[in-house]
Amino acid sequence: MKNPFFKNHGPFKIKDLFNDINFNNSNISVDDIILDIRDLVTSSKNDLTFFHSKKYQQEAFATKASYCVTFNNLIEYLPTTCKAICVDNVLLTIFKIASKFYPQSINDDFDNTVKEINKIKFENSIQHGQNVLVGENVKIGKNCLIGHNTIIEKNVIIGSNCSIGSNVILRNSIIEDNVSILDGCIIGKKGFGFFPNKQKNLRYPHIGIVFIGENSEIGSGSTIDRGSMSNTIIGKNTFLDNQIHIAHNNKIGDNCIIAGQVGFAGSSTIGNNVMIGGQAGISGHLKIGNNVQIGGGSGVIRNIPENSKVMGYPSKDLRKFLKESK
Amino acid sequence: MKNPFFKNHGPFKIKDLFNDINFNNSNISVDDIILDIRDLVTSSKNDLTFFHSKKYQQEAFATKASYCVTFNNLIEYLPTTCKAICVDNVLLTIFKIASKFYPQSINDDFDNTVKEINKIKFENSIQHGQNVLVGENVKIGKNCLIGHNTIIEKNVIIGSNCSIGSNVILRNSIIEDNVSILDGCIIGKKGFGFFPNKQKNLRYPHIGIVFIGENSEIGSGSTIDRGSMSNTIIGKNTFLDNQIHIAHNNKIGDNCIIAGQVGFAGSSTIGNNVMIGGQAGISGHLKIGNNVQIGGGSGVIRNIPENSKVMGYPSKDLRKFLKESK
Amino acid sequence: MKNPFFKNHGPFKIKDLFNDINFNNSNISVDDIILDIRDLVTSSKNDLTFFHSKKYQQEAFATKASYCVTFNNLIEYLPTTCKAICVDNVLLTIFKIASKFYPQSINDDFDNTVKEINKIKFENSIQHGQNVLVGENVKIGKNCLIGHNTIIEKNVIIGSNCSIGSNVILRNSIIEDNVSILDGCIIGKKGFGFFPNKQKNLRYPHIGIVFIGENSEIGSGSTIDRGSMSNTIIGKNTFLDNQIHIAHNNKIGDNCIIAGQVGFAGSSTIGNNVMIGGQAGISGHLKIGNNVQIGGGSGVIRNIPENSKVMGYPSKDLRKFLKESK
Repeated sequence: MKNPFFKNHGPFKIKDLFNDINFNNSNISVDDIILDIRDLVTSSKNDLTFFHSKKYQQEAFATKASYCVTFNNLIEYLPTTCKAICVDNVLLTIFKIASKFYPQSINDDFDNTVKEINKIKFENSIQHGQNVLVGENVKIGKNCLIGHNTIIEKNVIIGSNCSIGSNVILRNSIIEDNVSILDGCIIGKKGFGFFPNKQKNLRYPHIGIVFIGENSEIGSGSTIDRGSMSNTIIGKNTFLDNQIHIAHNNKIGDNCIIAGQVGFAGSSTIGNNVMIGGQAGISGHLKIGNNVQIGGGSGVIRNIPENSKVMGYPSKDLRKFLKESK
Repeated sequence: MKNPFFKNHGPFKIKDLFNDINFNNSNISVDDIILDIRDLVTSSKNDLTFFHSKKYQQEAFATKASYCVTFNNLIEYLPTTCKAICVDNVLLTIFKIASKFYPQSINDDFDNTVKEINKIKFENSIQHGQNVLVGENVKIGKNCLIGHNTIIEKNVIIGSNCSIGSNVILRNSIIEDNVSILDGCIIGKKGFGFFPNKQKNLRYPHIGIVFIGENSEIGSGSTIDRGSMSNTIIGKNTFLDNQIHIAHNNKIGDNCIIAGQVGFAGSSTIGNNVMIGGQAGISGHLKIGNNVQIGGGSGVIRNIPENSKVMGYPSKDLRKFLKESK
Repeated sequence: MKNPFFKNHGPFKIKDLFNDINFNNSNISVDDIILDIRDLVTSSKNDLTFFHSKKYQQEAFATKASYCVTFNNLIEYLPTTCKAICVDNVLLTIFKIASKFYPQSINDDFDNTVKEINKIKFENSIQHGQNVLVGENVKIGKNCLIGHNTIIEKNVIIGSNCSIGSNVILRNSIIEDNVSILDGCIIGKKGFGFFPNKQKNLRYPHIGIVFIGENSEIGSGSTIDRGSMSNTIIGKNTFLDNQIHIAHNNKIGDNCIIAGQVGFAGSSTIGNNVMIGGQAGISGHLKIGNNVQIGGGSGVIRNIPENSKVMGYPSKDLRKFLKESK
């Protein structure tokens, strides 16, 4: 899929992207053309991808990318259709290249294409409040409500029967039908991802989007950051309470119920029908199975198999937690 | 008291509300008239109430409602003046009925009655910022200040000498005198209450309000949800710091001091003079006594008797917590 | 340095400030002139300062203030150039006096000097969104971006190359070059400091400012409160994620990385290169050394020496925490 939010400044030749690597004794020609840069799962032929941890060996083996930036010791996991480019720092390399493909994805300056909503012609009639600002090329479905002072930045897509509250900021997001986004949410900003560097940290590109599935609800004052190289996803009929923070690249399943002030550190996958109590925190790069229940205040720092009930910091079996705390 | 925010679409006859129940062998006539639906405490004669947990047996015994939806095994706690209507799922039944009485209380779509404040005539002069939007029938006392971009939705009542900050959203709320509500608060939205249901959760009505007592202060970026069948109450001279979340139906006493990022899960009762440290979480349906002190970061999952000092997750005696953690 | 945000209503004579103290047998004349009221570190000659805890004995010994409100048992730590004024309640006394010097620093009513930004003439051209409100005497450097609906209150100073998001509220703040402040932040409001008092708490003055060093980034929905008698400081190249709360008087060093929903209770000093995981909480009046790493969810209630890695509630050595939790 073409990225609807960030213009691809490619294609680039290998030699434009890797000018400090010697490809003489490799199966790669410096004039080879690279069309796009994507994660292991969403790459296609002639795309460049990256692979930096054994954790992702399954995804690596199935990638359709033609080129992959990786470490020497991970080459063996790549399919024969994918040519390896070995570097010392995979993430730093990939983010420098992503900055060439998508230079606009690094900063989140305000959208200066917005106009007052009543100066824009939409296919469907929209009920809206006062001082609503909408950017270029925004699509809004039938029977939507948009509250006062809300800002919908360029290229955002909103389905039918959605209710967007007041003081909401939406960018780089695709919202399906029947979604409610309550007052004061900030959705689609860049994630908290950068290379620490004395004097001035190096911000890396966030070319992913936020996708919110149908029938979901996002509580007041919540923040959902868009993905860096992949997307941040909220499943269908998943309800979030107030003041929740969902960092970049999280994938949350369908029918989840997440109470107030919960935080997700980034890049975790949460199954379907997961219930999470208030103020719980979910560390990064975890897998939480289907039907898991996580008690309020828990700190989850390890994967959780499906159908488990946990509580505590760090989280453990719920009955054990309650027994020990008597 | 008449609900100032949601129009009562009643009265209804018993047969309109319970069309799948056979009342032939009961003391109830299907033509009996029900005026309103309320909780056990605030119901009056000819009102319908509900009673779903032994926890509330004292309130049940004292109810003035004429009808009560309940379980078979709780009938014995009702006074003779109150006729029981037994069902399998009390809450689901009551929320379906509440939706008939108060259909507008389910969704929180933006208030389309608002106008710019300087187009509205008030009895008292009001100092206000720019772009302030005020709905129909709002009452504002003497010497109030209303900051920029703030939205006060229809029927809200604000006392005298209040200072409302900028970017605040107020709805379904009654605010007493001398209250400060700082920037960015969202007060009076529906609570996070619904029946989980695959495909599409079933939102239940929130006919309660938010009531904030005199001399209180609400910190920046806080959210206070209105009650479902009862009210959310903040007592007098109670101070809340920034980024606090108070869910529906909580009753917080007078002279409380609540530090930043504290969260309340809903339907708990907090006494007077209670102090709560930053980031503490209070589970639902608890009773916290007067003069209780709760340390920062605590997770409170059980009732706390008055005059206690606690800390920990789950919270325990403060001295014990500090001793064990040395 | 002259306070750029609050007008000093002094100088005052000793007798105007301490009318219930008998100075007959002291080295102080009731006609002595006091120019300003400051903390131990920033006071100059003819200023009044205060000293209420042995913790600050080093700062006390080095103070340049000519007068110091203190307790009887702390006099010995003051230099001979500083005359002690002994009272029963140092903080209550000092805040009453601060209210005389800076009466406007107690309340944070909205700034009624603001105008739409395009009605104000700036030295540098500024790219800005719609409905931006700017108060009197605001200074903004070159190449700045200011998002929609943002409010910059009077006297705020912003450096060059800053990007301020949408729906931001800035007051009583000095922002250096190359700083990003993301959407929905509320920066510079009064801290959560007051004397508890039945009927009506006694708010104390907040004459400090918020200072944000160059190259820093403040995540969406964060709140940073200004100091009471000293300043709240964010160092250079320090990055804050979303929904962080920094209470009054905290001093955070350079090159820190602070993840989402972290909270600081106030008056703590955080070194350089400190990393703090999501949802951690830092109690008040602590010293956290350079290069400290604090795991997500931690509750820090004691000082941490430099180069330590900690986690837990309360926090302990990281390896110990992980080992115990297996």
